[in-house]
Amino acid sequence: MAWFRNLAKVSSFKLSDRPRNTNPFLFSSFTFISNFSTESSHQKPSTEPIQYSGLLPTKSEEKPRVLVLGSGWAGCRLMKGIDTKTYDVVCVSPRNHMVFTPLLASTCVGTLEFRSVAEPIGRIQPAISKEPGSYFFLANCTGIDTDKHVVNCQTVTEGSDSLDPWRFSIAYDKLVVSLGAQASTFGIRGVKEHAIFLREVHHAQEIRRKLLLNLMLSDVPGITEEEKHRLLHCVVVGGGPTGVEFSGELSDFIMRDVRQRYVHVKDYIRVTLIEANDILSSFDDRLRRYATKQLTKSGVRLVRGIVKDVEAQKILLNDGTEVPYGLLVWSTGVGPSSFVNSLELPKSPGGRIGIDEWLRVPSVPDMFAIGDCGGFLESTGKPVLPALAQVAERQGKYLASLLNRIGKAGGGHANSAKDLDFGEPFVYKHLGSMATVGRYKALVDLRQSKEAKGLALAGFVSWFIWRSAYLTRVVSWRNRLYVAINWATTFVFGRDISRI
Amino acid sequence: MAWFRNLAKVSSFKLSDRPRNTNPFLFSSFTFISNFSTESSHQKPSTEPIQYSGLLPTKSEEKPRVLVLGSGWAGCRLMKGIDTKTYDVVCVSPRNHMVFTPLLASTCVGTLEFRSVAEPIGRIQPAISKEPGSYFFLANCTGIDTDKHVVNCQTVTEGSDSLDPWRFSIAYDKLVVSLGAQASTFGIRGVKEHAIFLREVHHAQEIRRKLLLNLMLSDVPGITEEEKHRLLHCVVVGGGPTGVEFSGELSDFIMRDVRQRYVHVKDYIRVTLIEANDILSSFDDRLRRYATKQLTKSGVRLVRGIVKDVEAQKILLNDGTEVPYGLLVWSTGVGPSSFVNSLELPKSPGGRIGIDEWLRVPSVPDMFAIGDCGGFLESTGKPVLPALAQVAERQGKYLASLLNRIGKAGGGHANSAKDLDFGEPFVYKHLGSMATVGRYKALVDLRQSKEAKGLALAGFVSWFIWRSAYLTRVVSWRNRLYVAINWATTFVFGRDISRI
Repeated sequence: MAWFRNLAKVSSFKLSDRPRNTNPFLFSSFTFISNFSTESSHQKPSTEPIQYSGLLPTKSEEKPRVLVLGSGWAGCRLMKGIDTKTYDVVCVSPRNHMVFTPLLASTCVGTLEFRSVAEPIGRIQPAISKEPGSYFFLANCTGIDTDKHVVNCQTVTEGSDSLDPWRFSIAYDKLVVSLGAQASTFGIRGVKEHAIFLREVHHAQEIRRKLLLNLMLSDVPGITEEEKHRLLHCVVVGGGPTGVEFSGELSDFIMRDVRQRYVHVKDYIRVTLIEANDILSSFDDRLRRYATKQLTKSGVRLVRGIVKDVEAQKILLNDGTEVPYGLLVWSTGVGPSSFVNSLELPKSPGGRIGIDEWLRVPSVPDMFAIGDCGGFLESTGKPVLPALAQVAERQGKYLASLLNRIGKAGGGHANSAKDLDFGEPFVYKHLGSMATVGRYKALVDLRQSKEAKGLALAGFVSWFIWRSAYLTRVVSWRNRLYVAINWATTFVFGRDISRI
Repeated sequence: MAWFRNLAKVSSFKLSDRPRNTNPFLFSSFTFISNFSTESSHQKPSTEPIQYSGLLPTKSEEKPRVLVLGSGWAGCRLMKGIDTKTYDVVCVSPRNHMVFTPLLASTCVGTLEFRSVAEPIGRIQPAISKEPGSYFFLANCTGIDTDKHVVNCQTVTEGSDSLDPWRFSIAYDKLVVSLGAQASTFGIRGVKEHAIFLREVHHAQEIRRKLLLNLMLSDVPGITEEEKHRLLHCVVVGGGPTGVEFSGELSDFIMRDVRQRYVHVKDYIRVTLIEANDILSSFDDRLRRYATKQLTKSGVRLVRGIVKDVEAQKILLNDGTEVPYGLLVWSTGVGPSSFVNSLELPKSPGGRIGIDEWLRVPSVPDMFAIGDCGGFLESTGKPVLPALAQVAERQGKYLASLLNRIGKAGGGHANSAKDLDFGEPFVYKHLGSMATVGRYKALVDLRQSKEAKGLALAGFVSWFIWRSAYLTRVVSWRNRLYVAINWATTFVFGRDISRI
């Protein structure tokens, strides 16, 4: 009887299965790169030190390899567009999904579910999980050797206590850096420790857990009035679209859900939005006034101030005011990540990786930078583009077709595209900006730039455009379905309040 | 302009809002119980020690208070059935939702989403968030003073680094202990540290994150064959319904999703189910054989063995066999929790809180125990009921109507029900058992007991019954909709593989 299978099977599989390492193509390009074997960090304390290993340079008869660092808007749009008959695609990123960032604020209060805004990379570019030479690696990039065309990486093992990080390296033919930016703290003490950013799904999860925790804790017998007010004071620093949308969602959550389902504490919860200048500074003046009015009407307090110091339970403003808080969300914009800072390459104004009109890093062959981590060099005479999803997406799309063209013209392999004509340079055309400001209200600004004239809408129609536009831009049909269903169930049943 | 509101508003709200502590009913029963003020644990190191505070005993003109400890099947079914015109309901639990446990195994691999199996208590019994005398407290029970009719609690602040736990106490008129059981480790070393249980949503989340992490790590260049086999070896210990269902889901995930979306490593992943005796021992013999055949056919290795020791990367069996693993799920059944063990009350066989036929703790007035934490005393002559959702649910329902009857007869307040007729005792009628064994296959055993005769089905029809039965038993319409949609999208698009 199969059930009585001898245990020997278990004990022997460790040995007997090892020689079965047969899949012929699986290891075709997996060999040790000896010049990376100087360091001996490894994971199993019981075995001898394992050396740096990795993907060797491709041979001329093999497909050239595009290495994409990062899995944000730019990198994912690029991978989606890459012709996998021409190239193998390798992606290195600490997360295996793309976040549909414009809808992230809605997940913090349960309007949308987290998974509805996360798109697995394996669905965006199926080759990475199917093709023998294409891979996704859950890892961080630790260094780039542009001369040798090699990137060093280290695995992300967060959530596993029994594994140490593992180092490896990947030789590339084309390197696309799309590592994004990181939230700016302006060197203010305590921001990293106490504030929550709003850039990844785990940030939204943390905000949701903390908000629900504070709502429940403030109901406990014996909590002082002062402490209740503090616990339920939600402070948002930064009045850009993210901060405004999150404030709007929060006030909507309070008006619709907290009032019904946390009746005992509903009079204590408050939202304050702190901004040093104007909110939504990139939007049309009338829209800004409309947003200000809507937010104020829905109970958000707008405060003009500069944060000086952040402590565990209170913020200190420049003028000495103390603002106690229970939840602090930080959305003051982004700046270059420390990895980008560490790269010894010419930089654009603002410290991004300097690129030319074809999104190339001019001094380095076969290297490109797109999205928030790249910016036009001053020598190009073009302004650095704003850190927006639509810029990143357009650059990813442009570069995919550029690389496809290069590959088809025989310039796919390393150092072989020098004499090719790169064709039309990248030109950015702004399609407009959108932001919600709470229940059934949004702004749509279709002007080309801040100074230009054009259509600027506010109110229910804008909100409808906002929803429709984002729904159609959600990458997969699965998530499009889920976003629509989430919106419908939130409308019918209210938001989900289980704290899981 | 509203936007220029003076900052003084922020700085003054701390002070000026404090006297507004007006809501007249909100604090009607919130005062300090002086006899609990001996301990001075508190949360804010900067302020003077805060004393134990809490909900005082109800007065005769107030509604009596039912205090429910725990939010599992038993407690939630009870709360749902309690007549809130007769009673105030207070629930103390470390989680603010009920887990629909029969479907938990399906969430580990993405067949269902986590939120589809979590039901907020505020939806099961809306009074706890609306009525002035009803509450939900996110807290653990730390002690019961049965003479004084008081329970001591401590808040759960996990996930918040800026708050210490806060203690408070609640006086009750009726106390319902429905704290459930905890996973048995049989004192085996390393189980708690290295294995994952499958009882809460966060367990399922941990399993999913670890499984996806291991799938991705095993694809990294330079990982040895041996390490790959280890990382992708999923070991399940315990062959009860949970262990079998999880193994079935895993093998289905491997057959359908891993083979398509982790092509590079698909030949390495394996599932082993270790059980000391027979799998599904409570089921009909034919069904057991069917399950064994189905699991083996779908690639699950069934191993009869006893675990002796668990280390970070391997299990040691009693006969000396070493089983390396990447994921270890422990589902060997449950035993009394340490809190139940600590209660100095007469116990049933198996160490549960001893109860009589009316689910009362006989020696203690106004105290009841239902679900997995209670068991019939030997003196009742009845066997201790199995730790099943259907037992807990039936007991919760029975006790709700018993308490409603008592309340209406004027026995709701503490120590006032002694002379009342409690009516019919609780009688348990087993409705049958169900378990899935992978894709489109399930077992349905409708016999009253192991020895009885009756209908026993296996195969697609059972699977259909299994799905339909659970779908109709999911508590809310919202979650019923989501479970149905999750099943449909998994069928059409496959499982979600983003690791968030």
